Amino acid sequence: MKIAILSIGDELISGRITDTNAGTVSSILLEHGLTVQSHVTVGDSEVDIISALSELERHSDYIIATGGLGPTADDLTTHAVARATGRRLIVNEEARAHVQKMSARLNTMIAAPLNDKQAMLPSKTTIIPNPTGTACGFQLMHNNCHMFFMPGVPSEMLPMLNESVLPFLLERQPKKRVVRFRNLNVFGPREAEVDELLVGIAAPQDGLQMGICVSYPAMKITFRAEADSQAVADAKLAGALEATYQRIGKFIYSEGEVTLAEKVATLLRESGKTLALAESCTGGMISQLITAIPGSSEFFLEGAVTYSNVAKQKRLGVPAEMIDAHGAVSSEVAAAMAAGIRNSAASDIGLAVTGVAGPDGGSTEKPVGTVFISLAGVDGCWTERYKFGGNREDVRIATAWTALDRLRRYLLNEKPR
Amino acid sequence: MKIAILSIGDELISGRITDTNAGTVSSILLEHGLTVQSHVTVGDSEVDIISALSELERHSDYIIATGGLGPTADDLTTHAVARATGRRLIVNEEARAHVQKMSARLNTMIAAPLNDKQAMLPSKTTIIPNPTGTACGFQLMHNNCHMFFMPGVPSEMLPMLNESVLPFLLERQPKKRVVRFRNLNVFGPREAEVDELLVGIAAPQDGLQMGICVSYPAMKITFRAEADSQAVADAKLAGALEATYQRIGKFIYSEGEVTLAEKVATLLRESGKTLALAESCTGGMISQLITAIPGSSEFFLEGAVTYSNVAKQKRLGVPAEMIDAHGAVSSEVAAAMAAGIRNSAASDIGLAVTGVAGPDGGSTEKPVGTVFISLAGVDGCWTERYKFGGNREDVRIATAWTALDRLRRYLLNEKPR
Repeated sequence: MKIAILSIGDELISGRITDTNAGTVSSILLEHGLTVQSHVTVGDSEVDIISALSELERHSDYIIATGGLGPTADDLTTHAVARATGRRLIVNEEARAHVQKMSARLNTMIAAPLNDKQAMLPSKTTIIPNPTGTACGFQLMHNNCHMFFMPGVPSEMLPMLNESVLPFLLERQPKKRVVRFRNLNVFGPREAEVDELLVGIAAPQDGLQMGICVSYPAMKITFRAEADSQAVADAKLAGALEATYQRIGKFIYSEGEVTLAEKVATLLRESGKTLALAESCTGGMISQLITAIPGSSEFFLEGAVTYSNVAKQKRLGVPAEMIDAHGAVSSEVAAAMAAGIRNSAASDIGLAVTGVAGPDGGSTEKPVGTVFISLAGVDGCWTERYKFGGNREDVRIATAWTALDRLRRYLLNEKPR
Repeated sequence: MKIAILSIGDELISGRITDTNAGTVSSILLEHGLTVQSHVTVGDSEVDIISALSELERHSDYIIATGGLGPTADDLTTHAVARATGRRLIVNEEARAHVQKMSARLNTMIAAPLNDKQAMLPSKTTIIPNPTGTACGFQLMHNNCHMFFMPGVPSEMLPMLNESVLPFLLERQPKKRVVRFRNLNVFGPREAEVDELLVGIAAPQDGLQMGICVSYPAMKITFRAEADSQAVADAKLAGALEATYQRIGKFIYSEGEVTLAEKVATLLRESGKTLALAESCTGGMISQLITAIPGSSEFFLEGAVTYSNVAKQKRLGVPAEMIDAHGAVSSEVAAAMAAGIRNSAASDIGLAVTGVAGPDGGSTEKPVGTVFISLAGVDGCWTERYKFGGNREDVRIATAWTALDRLRRYLLNEKPR
């Protein structure tokens, strides 16, 4: 059952708009065990649409096409389909009735000739009802390939896909396979390291696939299991997750769509501890990630973005002599910042970062990317030095994430390294 | 000059990730007058990659492919290309040297065998240098079709496109019809308002097009002029920009890729004034936007993320009675915060925000989205009330942007309304 998706539109081929339809249709089909083989995008050009259709039909049993069915002159899909399949364009009475009904309901002021265009369809086609717009979709069979044509507007296309196209495909699906997904979110190691550590967990021949997707600075490990029943698919996933936790558990900060900040927020809530932050190079980024969580005022007391040395002294009580002796980017100052904000905010935990985000300010001893992160709690204060790569924003993001991850481990009763 | 784009990756064909590369490459090429004919996406499947390449090569002079060059086992592009073009896979010494150099620089712990994979390329290929990652790109010519292969990670792919692929294409561009772009960045009004205010400025029949692209909470107005010479195209653009400034000038915060924070930073530098921030509902977002600018320590002294009422009192000197009488989200408290941070940080300007970001904490009098923004300078203190829509993050972003835009207008000697 070979399925291809064709997206049609000048706005897509020019890059003015990112095509989300192809991906959305793919993932909806995949949830039902239907795999899409290729996505093709062409502009509103008759020649290009015809050429795409005739190539795709050679390799596909089903073509799901979106776009180019609108009432205006640059919408050429219907015309191209008629030519590509050797059909005449005729007034389709069902389509005409639909256009009239929808125009009235949508209160449009589209002139009559334009509406007539939307009632003209290739001969020998079946209408795909469009519950939300004027453009009818249609389907036809040509050279043993089923072709579906729908408008490109997602809010019109999706109901048509779900109500008409998907049921049509599922009826013809040779064998119903269940596909289930689960994912783990990982921070710390690099993609290639994770890949190596997880060798052998995926078993594609057994319907269990693994994918690693990097989304800086974290990555998502997705497991996909295919089986005859949901129970079997879920059991495969459970086994894969358990093995993954055994190998790289300490790097896994959450499952599903839970962000690192959300995980930290949950742990803070559970522990009943309060937090205060002192940020230098991250300039408020950690505070911002924490306060993005609804209800964070429950555990987050305050943040001090102590950019200047004076602010570090005045707000956090870092001694001027310490800054003079060791520099603002130093283990000593980081520790004093963490203890200082914990003390002055009267929080359970003080978390502080200071570093050289660049592009300027680096030295041989402390090059750009050098960062100190310090965590002060009732049971002690731990400070570590890091060296992050990349540009200013990369360093800031890596610092913020490393600080949050460190807090996560502390709250899980793993003391910082 | 027929150009096709091929995106390779299971995460794309399954819809797990939306492919943005195809659109980005298209729009970059279009800026140089090069039109892309089709986008094709296939998964990490050797058969599908080979089939896509051989179909595209029949209709294209150039194929720009991205994805599947990583070090892991599921990256199959190189292998597929070798088979599709009848080449052997050999160790490419240039690629090997690059992988070694980059691995050392990126401080990875990738084991040797994985890296070796990235040094294996089809014979008779030319390397496309990758300044930011380990995976070399490569190009080759097969059946009169130039094929380029680059990694899928946009931050690696884009420099390779701009530095290697684009110049190669431009050298071979047959007729240089010049296409020039300029854009204005706008914050404040809605898309439909802007569209109405700018009626008649675009003249498509004269080769001058206008597009509005909303990127919450701002929008970008792009003008595209096509002409036989650069001078003529630029003159058209200059005319369109002048007319636009006349109509909506006060909402235009920058041209090109200059962010609002960058614009504010430039104005602060030029004025010689220093800034300190007091944030409640934005939780550090404004500080973070400002400190994203390299060299911001020149004018940014500090930020206080005073989330708790205690912090507002202690850090900013907001009287407890004032909070009791008016609430933490009030005009009085916002003004006291701005004056307080300006005073205690000894900055020229104090900027403060306090509001109800939601989802909880709203009241009839002050519903979710109610925000007070206050600016204190040597010449006075101005406070305004706003009501923003959307979810928690929308409210926070709108607040941060409105505060920055207010600072921009203040620095331009427009006093806040």
